[in-house]
Amino acid sequence: MSIPLLNERDINFLLYELLDTESLLSRPRYQEHSKEVFNAVLDTAHKLAEKYFANHNAKGDAHEPRFVDGKVEMIPETKVAWQQYAEAGFLSAHCDMDAGGMQLPEIIVRAANAYFSAANTATSGYSMLSVGAANLIDSFGSEQQQQLFLPPMREGRFSGTMALTEPAQGSSLADITTTATAHEDGSYRIHGQKMYISGGDQNFTDNIIHMVLARIKGAPAGVKGISLFIVPKFLVNDDGSLGPRNDVALAGLLHKMGYRNTTSTVLSFGEQDGAVGYLVGEPHHGITYMFQMMNEARIAVGTGAATIAYQGFNAALDYAKGRPQGRLPDQKSAQSKQVNIIEHADVRAMLLAQKAYAEGSLALCFIASSLFEDSQTADSKSARLEAHLLLDLLTPVVKSWPSRYGLKANELAIQIYGGAGYIREYPVEQLYRDQRLNPIHEGTEGIQALDLLGRKVISQNGEGLKLLLIKIQTCLAAARKHDQLAEPCEQLAEALETLQTTTQVLCAHLATETNKTLANASVYLDMFGRVVMAWVWLQQADIACRALAGNPHQEDQWFYRGKLQTARFYLLRELPEVEHQARLLQRFDSSALDMDPHWFAGN
Amino acid sequence: MSIPLLNERDINFLLYELLDTESLLSRPRYQEHSKEVFNAVLDTAHKLAEKYFANHNAKGDAHEPRFVDGKVEMIPETKVAWQQYAEAGFLSAHCDMDAGGMQLPEIIVRAANAYFSAANTATSGYSMLSVGAANLIDSFGSEQQQQLFLPPMREGRFSGTMALTEPAQGSSLADITTTATAHEDGSYRIHGQKMYISGGDQNFTDNIIHMVLARIKGAPAGVKGISLFIVPKFLVNDDGSLGPRNDVALAGLLHKMGYRNTTSTVLSFGEQDGAVGYLVGEPHHGITYMFQMMNEARIAVGTGAATIAYQGFNAALDYAKGRPQGRLPDQKSAQSKQVNIIEHADVRAMLLAQKAYAEGSLALCFIASSLFEDSQTADSKSARLEAHLLLDLLTPVVKSWPSRYGLKANELAIQIYGGAGYIREYPVEQLYRDQRLNPIHEGTEGIQALDLLGRKVISQNGEGLKLLLIKIQTCLAAARKHDQLAEPCEQLAEALETLQTTTQVLCAHLATETNKTLANASVYLDMFGRVVMAWVWLQQADIACRALAGNPHQEDQWFYRGKLQTARFYLLRELPEVEHQARLLQRFDSSALDMDPHWFAGN
Repeated sequence: MSIPLLNERDINFLLYELLDTESLLSRPRYQEHSKEVFNAVLDTAHKLAEKYFANHNAKGDAHEPRFVDGKVEMIPETKVAWQQYAEAGFLSAHCDMDAGGMQLPEIIVRAANAYFSAANTATSGYSMLSVGAANLIDSFGSEQQQQLFLPPMREGRFSGTMALTEPAQGSSLADITTTATAHEDGSYRIHGQKMYISGGDQNFTDNIIHMVLARIKGAPAGVKGISLFIVPKFLVNDDGSLGPRNDVALAGLLHKMGYRNTTSTVLSFGEQDGAVGYLVGEPHHGITYMFQMMNEARIAVGTGAATIAYQGFNAALDYAKGRPQGRLPDQKSAQSKQVNIIEHADVRAMLLAQKAYAEGSLALCFIASSLFEDSQTADSKSARLEAHLLLDLLTPVVKSWPSRYGLKANELAIQIYGGAGYIREYPVEQLYRDQRLNPIHEGTEGIQALDLLGRKVISQNGEGLKLLLIKIQTCLAAARKHDQLAEPCEQLAEALETLQTTTQVLCAHLATETNKTLANASVYLDMFGRVVMAWVWLQQADIACRALAGNPHQEDQWFYRGKLQTARFYLLRELPEVEHQARLLQRFDSSALDMDPHWFAGN
Repeated sequence: MSIPLLNERDINFLLYELLDTESLLSRPRYQEHSKEVFNAVLDTAHKLAEKYFANHNAKGDAHEPRFVDGKVEMIPETKVAWQQYAEAGFLSAHCDMDAGGMQLPEIIVRAANAYFSAANTATSGYSMLSVGAANLIDSFGSEQQQQLFLPPMREGRFSGTMALTEPAQGSSLADITTTATAHEDGSYRIHGQKMYISGGDQNFTDNIIHMVLARIKGAPAGVKGISLFIVPKFLVNDDGSLGPRNDVALAGLLHKMGYRNTTSTVLSFGEQDGAVGYLVGEPHHGITYMFQMMNEARIAVGTGAATIAYQGFNAALDYAKGRPQGRLPDQKSAQSKQVNIIEHADVRAMLLAQKAYAEGSLALCFIASSLFEDSQTADSKSARLEAHLLLDLLTPVVKSWPSRYGLKANELAIQIYGGAGYIREYPVEQLYRDQRLNPIHEGTEGIQALDLLGRKVISQNGEGLKLLLIKIQTCLAAARKHDQLAEPCEQLAEALETLQTTTQVLCAHLATETNKTLANASVYLDMFGRVVMAWVWLQQADIACRALAGNPHQEDQWFYRGKLQTARFYLLRELPEVEHQARLLQRFDSSALDMDPHWFAGN
């Protein structure tokens, strides 16, 4: 496979020029590390991803997991990939050394995982979920639970899942019906069905630990009555050895459009006596705990989406550079040589859009990872709080923007390939199918939009938003020093003003006219995302201008000019749509609300 | 299958309220018909489509055609569908009764075919191509060619293809390399390879007639050196019986993302002595002839795209009406009953967008069909010319708008289904995969954009555009009489002004700064399309207002209110984006042109 997974020069840029990852070395937790260690980790990830993940990305799509006699059959490369990932220590890379980990900062782990998801988003899904499940036990489980389950999960003998969704409940977790009944031995018995559980069964680990949301009998209605349980596929004896099979049955596999080598399962809990489950933390606090995992997962989904877009961009660029077709419009002579399609303005525009979406998404997710890191390990308490507030605000954008525009990027990659893009002999159609999941899982676009406008912009008296505005203003002040950025800066300043006004208008009505105000939340999310992405690109352009002033070597000149031009493209072509969105939001457009369901009738 | 194929009430509306299809009965060619005949034809199409096409839409996707021992194996339902379609006379429905046809107007044939493509776009592809191939022979073939090939093609014993694309040439037909050598018997010998040939082989007709573009040895370079040939799979004796196999070999099948039950083939012509081909019409006029078929195909692609979008919309509407999930934002009580998701503003907005795209696309394609009809059978020569000019201008929009926004509609249908939309157990993900082909084949988006701005708006001194502007002004004048349409009318009037100014600015530079002016042709195509679609919707809204004034029965009230609200949605929410597009176009934004290919480097 000659198409690069990501772009090492760009990863380097994001880590050490956009973000000051090196400065983490001064924090107590990372003092034993060095930039060389960080880079060696990334290099290992890159190599393993190419060798053990990219090798079966297409194969796992063509030969998806099958349900045979109640068990999952899947291609053997999946197990090898899992083992290599585990053996290299990535399942516990973020853990303290005392706990057997590598004590690596979040951003390095995130960058390492970006290589794996670029190589094979489906196979890399298992580890993402397992780490999230283990982290939940780590944060909220009892010491006994931690001792029993964490070592095998960190070592890769057990995997983990998040079992939230039920056949009748997806977005509305408040209504889940799976029950938990207290048992005399202190454990619980779980009854119910879960659906769309990724990695809910597979054939490559000894055991699977399901983190299950269920309702203890008699609990209050709604999210305040939901508890979190550890439900292992096989019970685990006190000495860590496997006990009998728990009452969790694989009822079937779902057949996805893409993302196929991640099993999507229907699981039945308690078809016989009830599945044994262990309460995590306090009763009725399950949603709060689970949100830790969901927030992690949302950054992971954003990053995964960014990497699929990146793969498509790399492939389309490669194709556009080498495919001769047609001539420029002013060249009429049929005798003249054909040009490679990268010479056509339309193809270049499609490549630029992909670059804006893919690199911009990855940059955004890395910024989010860096905020997560700061929220945990920044020197001062105020810096930690600030990072937390900002990340909290940005999470809906981090989840949804790369998913939405990543899909658009993958659509454009197909378009550049033309007919070749539509056939399975080339890689881009699978990327598009894989990507289509991302705007759905871990909270749909609509859910993220309600979260942003209905909660995040107003929470903590809007402190998160204020912080973001200051960040953007600071970036603008720096970028204005470069003449080349005058126009883009003007655009962003205007858009920022528009965002502020619109937010004020909406928030003034949120409490009193909730439905009407939230009716266009998805438009607000897109508008907000455009401003955030413009900020992400302006930061990159500012760095590029400064670097170019130093007259770097040829390849770096190209690299920085590319960043600069992409920033111009995004800020001048895509950002200004916020003006129309703002008008629509500010007049509380009720086209959708006013549409009586009967009026759809007639068919 | 409980999801309706289209919406009979809407088809009725388009044919008899938006268009005056009944008035065709006064034209000499249709005097023997009646509205009842038209409706009976549509009824037959609807029933056959449900029974013989919808029945294997999913099966043909799951069990795509296979290449076994040089032959195609495919599911047997395909042959039954073909036979039913042929036996009902649809392959020759548009032909004169003298020629064994039904002498039906274009619009009725188009509406009938809409049912078949809604039911199974892949299986319906074969007949669309066959009819186009036969029409080419009908228009440009010799009497002998017509006598030999037309009867079996019209009866369905032979099918037809259009063989343009080669492995190295898709969009750039000027560069095709397949050769034709004159043979002493007056025929030619064809050598070369064709790729992505839909229906290039199958197992359900006795013979396949390929309409092949090739270059006669010594012909001029470019499109002016391309000729059109009839190349049958089996040679046909003078008495119509089949002769030996021609030297056309199936080299392989391509494996598509969707649209799978239409074979996509690689064909080798002349691996042995050369495939026997018969020149159609004059040498070197092949492209001109083929454009007849391509223009037909472009309307067919638009209509097909509209019907796939329509299917997705119908499915999503059905799902949204019956799926309970969550509560309205102002309803916090967890004890309250969940609402069906159609109650959520965001879901309604997604349904409205789908309705705007699907019904709007179908209306546009029906308008195009009506123009085609008028260009052939309108009473006066000037009316025929006018219709021809307008259709010529609109063809790039008719091909591309439904393809682009149809895909968007299918994407939204998945989003409404949520997780269920992503799995193959539900129909919407296949529709999305099927639809993805439409922005690619029969001229990509980029090609349509260059055709519109580089040719169509300036051809015949811009007469076509002038006609369109008059049509839109007339529509505006009528619509302004309704108070409810004041706002939408204002939007369209403004957008129309913007379109005119932008077109003038661009056209003034087209000859002298061709590359720069055409650099953003795709943006122009989208802008132009928005105005056209706003006109399509305003016409429907105007009719709805008039109908509502007559206080119709309940179901019709709902139907017309739906049309009205969708028009408002489109004109107020989606049309105004032209303002931003116009600014970008008028300043000749060069973001893409200025992007040096080296700047993409670094990976």
